[in-house]
Amino acid sequence: MKRFAISALLVGGAVISLPAVAQFQKPEDAVKYRQSAFTLIGNHFGRINGQLKADKPNVQAIQSSAALVETLSTVPYEAFGPDTALPNSKAKPEIWTEQEKFKAAAQKMQAAVAKLNTAAKGGDVGAIKAAFSDAGGTCKGCHDDFRAK
Amino acid sequence: MKRFAISALLVGGAVISLPAVAQFQKPEDAVKYRQSAFTLIGNHFGRINGQLKADKPNVQAIQSSAALVETLSTVPYEAFGPDTALPNSKAKPEIWTEQEKFKAAAQKMQAAVAKLNTAAKGGDVGAIKAAFSDAGGTCKGCHDDFRAK
Repeated sequence: MKRFAISALLVGGAVISLPAVAQFQKPEDAVKYRQSAFTLIGNHFGRINGQLKADKPNVQAIQSSAALVETLSTVPYEAFGPDTALPNSKAKPEIWTEQEKFKAAAQKMQAAVAKLNTAAKGGDVGAIKAAFSDAGGTCKGCHDDFRAK
Repeated sequence: MKRFAISALLVGGAVISLPAVAQFQKPEDAVKYRQSAFTLIGNHFGRINGQLKADKPNVQAIQSSAALVETLSTVPYEAFGPDTALPNSKAKPEIWTEQEKFKAAAQKMQAAVAKLNTAAKGGDVGAIKAAFSDAGGTCKGCHDDFRAK
């Protein structure tokens, strides 16, 4: 939400070049963008889960996925503009009616996946499992509150 | 393609844990995954283009997008497995019949966006424009040969 606010501000300060610098040409593009980011995050979260359930987790694979998940964790949130509650989106209205709560949930996830990436770099599978469980909880919490079934 | 080959090899060496560590549950997931990566890459490529066309390019915004594009540039290619030529994909059959050529096109793009990221970090708009033009050429080249209209 913070990044979206900053973007809106910048755009507001340079109205002439709006069409050229707008992040999304139309609301559908914003939905596709945030869904794309979550698709990659979800896939790599699933890979980490798979490794942690394996007899011999591939720590290098976990590290690669955890780094990508952290990088992507801030990406989707600028794409929740007020005009993007479209039918092909599972976004609940609460995203816009409870913006502070949504923002807090996003930040909680971002902090948790940063810790997961740190744990992954450390290489201790037990620590990775604990951090992964915490991070997974933040996914679920936000999905429960802000994503339609 | 290299990453896909390595993944297949690893999976082949650990057949017991295959369901847990497979990157994609089904071919549709691989298509969605690579399309998601290209959606983010395309969006941020468009943002850089928009900035470079603006009267006063926001170099920080360009840097942020160029870094993300470089990070994502290797992501899609493991998702072009041989069973993923699905109707909802624009992937041409040549991806699989001319694998070496496709691999070379991917590597050319990856090298070009790495140079773009380096130029972006340098902050010289002229150098960024030149690197952006080269990178854009590698997108177009691969789309012309391997992506249906």
